[in-house]
Amino acid sequence: MKIIVDAFGGDNAPLEILKGSALAVKELEVEILLVGDEKRIRSCAEENGISLDNMEILQADTVFEMEYEPRTLLKEHKDTSLGVAMQALAQGKGDAVVSAGSTGAIVVGATFIVKRIKGIRRTAIASVMPSEKGPFMLLDSGANIECRPEHLCQFASMGSVYMNKIIGIENPRVGVANIGVEENKGTALQLETYSALKESKLNFIGNAEVRDIPFGVADVIVADGFTGNVILKMYEGVAGMLMGNIKAIFKKNLFSKLAYLGVKGGVDSFKAKMDYKEYGGAVLLGVEKPVIKAHGSSNEKAFKNAIRQAVNCVKNDVVGEIKAACAKVE
Amino acid sequence: MKIIVDAFGGDNAPLEILKGSALAVKELEVEILLVGDEKRIRSCAEENGISLDNMEILQADTVFEMEYEPRTLLKEHKDTSLGVAMQALAQGKGDAVVSAGSTGAIVVGATFIVKRIKGIRRTAIASVMPSEKGPFMLLDSGANIECRPEHLCQFASMGSVYMNKIIGIENPRVGVANIGVEENKGTALQLETYSALKESKLNFIGNAEVRDIPFGVADVIVADGFTGNVILKMYEGVAGMLMGNIKAIFKKNLFSKLAYLGVKGGVDSFKAKMDYKEYGGAVLLGVEKPVIKAHGSSNEKAFKNAIRQAVNCVKNDVVGEIKAACAKVE
Repeated sequence: MKIIVDAFGGDNAPLEILKGSALAVKELEVEILLVGDEKRIRSCAEENGISLDNMEILQADTVFEMEYEPRTLLKEHKDTSLGVAMQALAQGKGDAVVSAGSTGAIVVGATFIVKRIKGIRRTAIASVMPSEKGPFMLLDSGANIECRPEHLCQFASMGSVYMNKIIGIENPRVGVANIGVEENKGTALQLETYSALKESKLNFIGNAEVRDIPFGVADVIVADGFTGNVILKMYEGVAGMLMGNIKAIFKKNLFSKLAYLGVKGGVDSFKAKMDYKEYGGAVLLGVEKPVIKAHGSSNEKAFKNAIRQAVNCVKNDVVGEIKAACAKVE
Repeated sequence: MKIIVDAFGGDNAPLEILKGSALAVKELEVEILLVGDEKRIRSCAEENGISLDNMEILQADTVFEMEYEPRTLLKEHKDTSLGVAMQALAQGKGDAVVSAGSTGAIVVGATFIVKRIKGIRRTAIASVMPSEKGPFMLLDSGANIECRPEHLCQFASMGSVYMNKIIGIENPRVGVANIGVEENKGTALQLETYSALKESKLNFIGNAEVRDIPFGVADVIVADGFTGNVILKMYEGVAGMLMGNIKAIFKKNLFSKLAYLGVKGGVDSFKAKMDYKEYGGAVLLGVEKPVIKAHGSSNEKAFKNAIRQAVNCVKNDVVGEIKAACAKVE
């Protein structure tokens, strides 16, 4: 199996990308096709003592900068490492792409270069997130600002396949992100999606009241990309703010530092449960081949996990399973 | 000044409502008009040793149950304590209403019995919420599932008046809740609201990236009621889940309990900063007289704070200031 890696995407490229790739080669028995400027890749690897065993390099002269318009990936900036990586995937030079680059551009590349699965109407950014009860998938978490009910139904179907095949949840519970559990809550989008999912063969549990999401109310939560992105970012924002303040409380003085020793075990295991980096990145569902968007701030370990996620998608033929599931629905 | 209190709204009615009202009479030099079944009120007060000094009782035979359709407040259930309280406010029997009852019914009562201010197109539920830097106001947080840009502009104007007159913030910073800071982010609603607010005389700071909301990025944050409600509930949900788990870590064993002593001071002062009950309830803005929705689970102190909030709205003539501000905008 060969995973195509955009060596110049994200805040810590290329160093952490190369380190993560080397780790993946070692741990996952996978080949890597690094995409980017060969000279820079080789000098970075050499300076930092990173082995490039089992890795090939595909030359790309430039980098897709965060401020570029996503659509420019198709023309003006197709020679960037991200653009070349997407083309390589489309041409079958590898089995999946992993990039920590611009989310918008990854959506564009996945949709228009790798291409959507026939019959799938929208590509979704599917994020695996932590809850008190374990991971759940939120989709769409930002690719499609506006959606129709039929899009959300496909998201539900694709998310169920992923949570079953990759996370190993039998019969994943599907919910519609909403401002109440009652069937009559929300806008036309939520109302119509509710009715449609009720008739489906998915394990639909009704509306996922937003307040209950962090407690693990469903395994797959569907939303339009605007609402999904709000949920994702409120989760990150509130957790970041609270944890930052609690950290500061422990660091305040000698007593508080000593106090930390008494709870360190509990804190560490809770942190591990909440560590979304453990699940890899966000996966673009509805595309002909697996495309993984690693977090922009990915370090070595997070990037390795994103590669592992790509490997798992290929191994478990998530794309084929999605095709089969959606054919059944049609 | 006389505050009308729905004695039978909320999970802890009438006991905590009566206790909170008695506390308000003592601390705030205010008269209370309790609305509800007189016999039940008097026996509850007697049993619990609550003084009814400076309180009158206005008889209402029934209670507005949570499962009733909000609109039934206008006809079938106008004889409930909530319905009678709203009518009393409309008739000038008091200066403001405070209820911990059904949010939907309070919106209906405020809008159609107390009535909207002339020129105000939508009544907004305005919630004062905590951030790392201090309180901010989120509106609409659930009254209007769908909104137009002109509604959000009025919300911005009303929220600025409140944060200035009641919370004491000079020149409140106004932001549009959005999935990025860039001017081109969001749906047509966010785009058009951005353009309109840029031309206004408000202290518009642009889009409030949702992830930054808990860090205090703006003093007034406007959104449609669906998005606002999602933000409110994700805030409550994530904070509730994290704090619950952290509490459990401290309670785990003797060491962790001892550890708590080392950080208790810091935890207590952080908790106080984050205690949204301190600011009272949600205020319905755009209505001819102040209407306060206290939290359904309000205890004595939370309900007293909601009465204090009503008193402050009357004292500072928030309604008059909103009328003046909106006349200027038109």
